[in-house]
Amino acid sequence: MISFESDYNNGCHEAILRRLSETNDERTTGYGLDDFCIAAREKVRAACEMPEADVFFLVGGTQTNATVIDALLRGYQGVLAVETGHINVHESGAIEFGGHKVLALPSHDGKMDAGELRQWLEAFYGDIAFEHMVFPGMVYITFATEMGTIYTRAELEAIYGVCKHYGLPLFIDGARMGYGLMAEGCDISLPQLARLCDVFYLGGTKCGALCGEAVVFSGMKAPDHFFTTVKQHGALMAKGRLLGVQFDTLMQDGLYFKIARHAVEQAMRLRDAFVARGYKMYSNSPTNQQFVLLDKATIDRLEKDFVFEQWFPVGDMMNCRFVTSWATSPQDVDALIAAL
Amino acid sequence: MISFESDYNNGCHEAILRRLSETNDERTTGYGLDDFCIAAREKVRAACEMPEADVFFLVGGTQTNATVIDALLRGYQGVLAVETGHINVHESGAIEFGGHKVLALPSHDGKMDAGELRQWLEAFYGDIAFEHMVFPGMVYITFATEMGTIYTRAELEAIYGVCKHYGLPLFIDGARMGYGLMAEGCDISLPQLARLCDVFYLGGTKCGALCGEAVVFSGMKAPDHFFTTVKQHGALMAKGRLLGVQFDTLMQDGLYFKIARHAVEQAMRLRDAFVARGYKMYSNSPTNQQFVLLDKATIDRLEKDFVFEQWFPVGDMMNCRFVTSWATSPQDVDALIAAL
Amino acid sequence: MISFESDYNNGCHEAILRRLSETNDERTTGYGLDDFCIAAREKVRAACEMPEADVFFLVGGTQTNATVIDALLRGYQGVLAVETGHINVHESGAIEFGGHKVLALPSHDGKMDAGELRQWLEAFYGDIAFEHMVFPGMVYITFATEMGTIYTRAELEAIYGVCKHYGLPLFIDGARMGYGLMAEGCDISLPQLARLCDVFYLGGTKCGALCGEAVVFSGMKAPDHFFTTVKQHGALMAKGRLLGVQFDTLMQDGLYFKIARHAVEQAMRLRDAFVARGYKMYSNSPTNQQFVLLDKATIDRLEKDFVFEQWFPVGDMMNCRFVTSWATSPQDVDALIAAL
Amino acid sequence: MISFESDYNNGCHEAILRRLSETNDERTTGYGLDDFCIAAREKVRAACEMPEADVFFLVGGTQTNATVIDALLRGYQGVLAVETGHINVHESGAIEFGGHKVLALPSHDGKMDAGELRQWLEAFYGDIAFEHMVFPGMVYITFATEMGTIYTRAELEAIYGVCKHYGLPLFIDGARMGYGLMAEGCDISLPQLARLCDVFYLGGTKCGALCGEAVVFSGMKAPDHFFTTVKQHGALMAKGRLLGVQFDTLMQDGLYFKIARHAVEQAMRLRDAFVARGYKMYSNSPTNQQFVLLDKATIDRLEKDFVFEQWFPVGDMMNCRFVTSWATSPQDVDALIAAL
Repeated sequence: MISFESDYNNGCHEAILRRLSETNDERTTGYGLDDFCIAAREKVRAACEMPEADVFFLVGGTQTNATVIDALLRGYQGVLAVETGHINVHESGAIEFGGHKVLALPSHDGKMDAGELRQWLEAFYGDIAFEHMVFPGMVYITFATEMGTIYTRAELEAIYGVCKHYGLPLFIDGARMGYGLMAEGCDISLPQLARLCDVFYLGGTKCGALCGEAVVFSGMKAPDHFFTTVKQHGALMAKGRLLGVQFDTLMQDGLYFKIARHAVEQAMRLRDAFVARGYKMYSNSPTNQQFVLLDKATIDRLEKDFVFEQWFPVGDMMNCRFVTSWATSPQDVDALIAAL
Repeated sequence: MISFESDYNNGCHEAILRRLSETNDERTTGYGLDDFCIAAREKVRAACEMPEADVFFLVGGTQTNATVIDALLRGYQGVLAVETGHINVHESGAIEFGGHKVLALPSHDGKMDAGELRQWLEAFYGDIAFEHMVFPGMVYITFATEMGTIYTRAELEAIYGVCKHYGLPLFIDGARMGYGLMAEGCDISLPQLARLCDVFYLGGTKCGALCGEAVVFSGMKAPDHFFTTVKQHGALMAKGRLLGVQFDTLMQDGLYFKIARHAVEQAMRLRDAFVARGYKMYSNSPTNQQFVLLDKATIDRLEKDFVFEQWFPVGDMMNCRFVTSWATSPQDVDALIAAL
Repeated sequence: MISFESDYNNGCHEAILRRLSETNDERTTGYGLDDFCIAAREKVRAACEMPEADVFFLVGGTQTNATVIDALLRGYQGVLAVETGHINVHESGAIEFGGHKVLALPSHDGKMDAGELRQWLEAFYGDIAFEHMVFPGMVYITFATEMGTIYTRAELEAIYGVCKHYGLPLFIDGARMGYGLMAEGCDISLPQLARLCDVFYLGGTKCGALCGEAVVFSGMKAPDHFFTTVKQHGALMAKGRLLGVQFDTLMQDGLYFKIARHAVEQAMRLRDAFVARGYKMYSNSPTNQQFVLLDKATIDRLEKDFVFEQWFPVGDMMNCRFVTSWATSPQDVDALIAAL
Repeated sequence: MISFESDYNNGCHEAILRRLSETNDERTTGYGLDDFCIAAREKVRAACEMPEADVFFLVGGTQTNATVIDALLRGYQGVLAVETGHINVHESGAIEFGGHKVLALPSHDGKMDAGELRQWLEAFYGDIAFEHMVFPGMVYITFATEMGTIYTRAELEAIYGVCKHYGLPLFIDGARMGYGLMAEGCDISLPQLARLCDVFYLGGTKCGALCGEAVVFSGMKAPDHFFTTVKQHGALMAKGRLLGVQFDTLMQDGLYFKIARHAVEQAMRLRDAFVARGYKMYSNSPTNQQFVLLDKATIDRLEKDFVFEQWFPVGDMMNCRFVTSWATSPQDVDALIAAL
């Protein structure tokens, strides 16, 4: 079986494994205060061209979203996100567990529209009863989105402009940041993106690491005692070095981006093959997640040799998700294309 | 520098590293539903001699405590623990973040007394205002404790007896379970311990793994939809296989216990050397954590070559903690003994 | 100025004032355990024809919603409500403060559709990722709704049928229960309604009292230690007698329903006058809240003598709310009609 | 039966009843924005000699504590209070429900010691692991305390001095503020007390009102959007006028203090009678709560005609609480004295 089920269906990049072996016998202090984390933070800052940015390493995406959002909001505030945003749908209410409402905006293939954001905020402050409502306290978007799409630089500028106008921090969930930045047609670099938001993260779990997300406070200082908030959320790894070693490796010589680019290339090959054979794509994704409408017979046939997810029915077809990753080999894609 | 700073100051056991390498290229489903986790669960159940127990793998100790406690309590209930219990002191309020009060009992070198527990409960239900108070909903203890001590089998039976009488689940924080069960003079086995509580965990982070805690519901079924509660707490690892591979390795042929036994043996050598040289121990610990009173001159001298923690002053001496682990070599201990 | 601003713009019914005076010097125990509360509970049960129902008196609507919902849900569950439901819009995130998500369904003039509820639940349990989502734990509706509408008996039966099928308690927010049950065309009685849900409340604040809501667990026992949950939510009145005296008075000889009927009659007069004069109603409300589209000139003219709320623009008109209450005199309505 | 059970066992002061009647027919806006609340706020400010203070009216004590504390703390912070503090014992975990830990200091007859507070803070910041602990975010004391005692001006200055040094707001629970300020030997006035803390409240429920607590931000501005936080906590009364009318009456011509003084005088008569007859007082209370040790025979005898609470056994005696209030008549006390 060849798996296109997800981008976390494998181990880690071999360079990380090698590095874990090499460093295994070293003794370090805990909780991310070790030399590996220090070095990794420097490399993250360098990649962002932000030598002063506060950087923290957390373990997973839901955890990171819940921790950052809780740290940024006051009790009476909620977070604005599109309906399909991960925090609104697939995190089992982790944001609400922290006491905050997710204020949902329309989703456009996973993306937020700056104009709709502005209208929402205008309507909120224009409402006679707004003091009886949940105040907007920040904006959350994903890059790449859950639907595989990305924002253009102009779109991000527009959203961040609205955020600035209303004094709302912008937080970018970057669980798939590598695949987003390396996407076909992406017109924005990491240093540019870092300057178009207040905090974001570079996802490791889905892009080469065993686990780990690197949170970067790029447009603001970290909230007071963020370390303690991380601990309170159960997100502080005792052996923080596990995260340090991994990000130090991924950020070395652009490895993170190289392997993400590889995944995107394989996804583009797959997409082109689908299209060439007349399959209808559910969305136009330039990243490592491809959504295609398949009929039952095709699904049954492909499932004999391939693993992929059936998301939801669209008419009498099924919207199926095929995901590539840094670990997807060209041969894997060849095999799937041959089977189509 | 030789480090006795903590039992999470190293990488992982070489067998785990090897296993991670061997399995790295396999493709698995996520979230702990993979074959490695399935196999590891079976081995944990076998070690507990409980073929039906529900077993879950989480990432770290604070997270595990917060998740299990939140899953077991109703909103109006709190958790009983000794004052020095980890959840009451060193978890940044993670239990309160989940809405629950920690109800503190006296600590006896880190241990709870069954008689005091019973008295507390009698007093609670005898109070005219108990309906205005936080109801006790469960009991939390640690094994081994934060002070290096362990419960005897009789002590655990007494505590569990009180819990049963009052209908309170007993939860044992086993972040250092290996070192506890392998402690000098421990009169209880893992299967016995599993039958003297409702839920406990086998700590991996401090005992051979890079991260990971294996939660075992031994005296009760897992709470409904515990998987979702784990996710809500940000404690569900996408690449759950990382935990599965590690516990599958640790539970193979008793590796977990062998390496814990090694750590305890080194700690005993250290303790004996302290005592033989006339140093006063702060507590009588049969586990891998040793607490000894040192004067400033000795501390200054030792700190040139050794890393250890100064916990708190006792008179004009300092209570210092020296921790061994599975990774502590006999040579490390030899060197420290020579320096005393 | 004559106020149609809200149904809480006055004091209380004179019978309540009189009763407060008569009972003022009596000494009672606190927290709702007094004889006034005991008597009031009996009268509530009698009105529901449910001699065994658990009844509690709380202070206000948002508080009651938050307390009941928190008491019924487990941590991983959310509450289903329509988008326009009070808990989803106008309670400042009180539900999320308690850790729970409001799962929003479409609103039909404030009402939930049983078919859409069933479809939502089918879709939830049919989703491959439902264990990563917030579980539905109960259903919340309002009677009368925030838009002035009411459910027919058949509609309620259909909703409750879906709830029963999925094991979800149904909770009816009855802040305006009196006006709902006395609405024009209402085909359901209080005893019938009590049997078509699991818990509901009779709102006092908006229907004759100074404050107070009577929560009735009609289809289930009260959750364990609900008294303590009420206290934890800050909703337990020390001088519970204030609530007891009021509900004992309101439930005496059907006063609650008589005065609600009066308010509805005045609202119907107002509605008929609007319609007769060619104004367009925003919704077809048979209760004490009337929504009518007015142009700016009319608003300016009416505002000289009348208080009412401008809710939101509809095209170039404004949707204005006129609310009657038990305290609205026929002369007040005459004056407004004359001014139209 | 004559009741000394509590200071909330009656209705309200007759002046309030009269005022409620007089104002009953007036129409006002809701949520505390009405003219009665505006006037009452002015009178509270005047009584504090603080014309700029932010003043809010909430309904009850637990609710007020939970709301103010939640509004002042950040997520990683807890509140310092003595062990016997109401928030730590008798509020069913309302503070923890909001996500915050109560950090308990020793109680000295209900009072906090400034020196111990300082030591606690020094120890906290001196702890090597303080970033893994709950940060102190504010200090909570009660005036008068739950044990009937009061702080001297010097004691309050000392506590506030420590708070200022550490940047911690000081919050005084004034559920029994009237009885505290009018206590025998009290050397502090309301304006002085207002300047020795950041926020406090004047309790109405226990001192003349049917319900209501007046929160005064005397040493700081109200937290941003406190109105919304109040709503979120279910503490915003729709008919806020009920609170406005009551406080407007209580603050008129010093009524609040006059009736509190009356209660204290009756308590002093009672205390003197106990002492003169050789009964042993449990504590030396100068306020309206008296604690006396009684044997079983005496309790049985007194319970035939009087209501009072048995708090807890002290040796073979019972610590009994007798509470006077503004409504306690001299004849009530005469009767009890005669029965002793």
